[in-house]
Amino acid sequence: MNTAAVAPPRRLRRLPDRETSDRLALDDLLDAELVGHLAVAVDGVPVVVPMGYARVDRHLVLHGSTGGGFALRAASARTPVAFAVTALDGLVYARSLFDSSMNYRSVTVKGVLEAVPADEEEAALLALSERLMPGRPAEVRDTRRKEVAATRVLRLALDDVVMKQRAGGPSEEPDDGEDHTQWAGVLPLERRWGAPIPSALTPAGTAVPASVAALAR
Amino acid sequence: MNTAAVAPPRRLRRLPDRETSDRLALDDLLDAELVGHLAVAVDGVPVVVPMGYARVDRHLVLHGSTGGGFALRAASARTPVAFAVTALDGLVYARSLFDSSMNYRSVTVKGVLEAVPADEEEAALLALSERLMPGRPAEVRDTRRKEVAATRVLRLALDDVVMKQRAGGPSEEPDDGEDHTQWAGVLPLERRWGAPIPSALTPAGTAVPASVAALAR
Repeated sequence: MNTAAVAPPRRLRRLPDRETSDRLALDDLLDAELVGHLAVAVDGVPVVVPMGYARVDRHLVLHGSTGGGFALRAASARTPVAFAVTALDGLVYARSLFDSSMNYRSVTVKGVLEAVPADEEEAALLALSERLMPGRPAEVRDTRRKEVAATRVLRLALDDVVMKQRAGGPSEEPDDGEDHTQWAGVLPLERRWGAPIPSALTPAGTAVPASVAALAR
Repeated sequence: MNTAAVAPPRRLRRLPDRETSDRLALDDLLDAELVGHLAVAVDGVPVVVPMGYARVDRHLVLHGSTGGGFALRAASARTPVAFAVTALDGLVYARSLFDSSMNYRSVTVKGVLEAVPADEEEAALLALSERLMPGRPAEVRDTRRKEVAATRVLRLALDDVVMKQRAGGPSEEPDDGEDHTQWAGVLPLERRWGAPIPSALTPAGTAVPASVAALAR
């Protein structure tokens, strides 16, 4: 979520809805987002929970207290899962409600969760931390052996992946019968990191660390 | 997603992870977000897709080209579904990677999708549009009968709902053995609407409509 530079207003061409298998677009999305939704069927009933994740090469490494036990059971039982990551990029204002839309990018990964082998767990956790909080691992003490032992790290191979997206302006044609004197366009949605807030036990005046300063406004 | 005013830096107390059934917190989250993730089990295999939604009284009204056909089949077959809406509120920087975390709010709704009855469809679509793009319905032409006919609107009752959240600073205690001279705290994640971008067929100089101006920076 290294917030992209704010683009100046510009004229939009419309790109049609499409599935894309473009690897760069896929990695861009996966590397910009931090949370996805894991779905599993339990006796035919779907369960869906948010989980933190990071892309590490051709896997998604998953971690999250909310979905922890649930994901672990799915991994043990080799239950099929689906994991979706979505970015909402903007609202698309057409000249009718019918043609109004949203710009978004979304990827769904299907597969089976696997536990990261014990001897790779520490490296996977470190990679996950480095992706979620760049630079932070070097600033804090090493993770203790018992902490690694208390953490289960799961991963999902990026094999069965579908990406969908909508980008660009509203659907419009010169002869579509709409009132073209009326404004139509896109209202982009932006995200950015705010001002860091120190914890209660951080001494007043303690400098914000480099990892946080690099992201914060 | 009427972006809340940016709060000034402040000291944080830690709130523990918790489930909450607080109606106001639930409605705040559902009314601030625009996209959720719908999960359905198809022959024991989970499918999950993003869908636009709006809360209308005690239902979520769903709409989305991506999940459209899929959701419609689930409604026809009265297949159980789960719908999750999550807001990532910030990164929690502790003095160890182990205690680092994310602040978030998440709600999961379980139930069966139902088609909005034909005679209520137009009103439901209007309510959905008004929630997603406040003020826009009054600015554009009326939705045509054939457009309403071409749109299926589904809803999910807010009956079986669980909300979870984490808020506040990192887990820390005076005697936790960590180096408290080190900075710990929260990096909040903010969202805001950007500068509106006119469509290709919007005449140069056309004023941005009130609905867009009210949201845009």
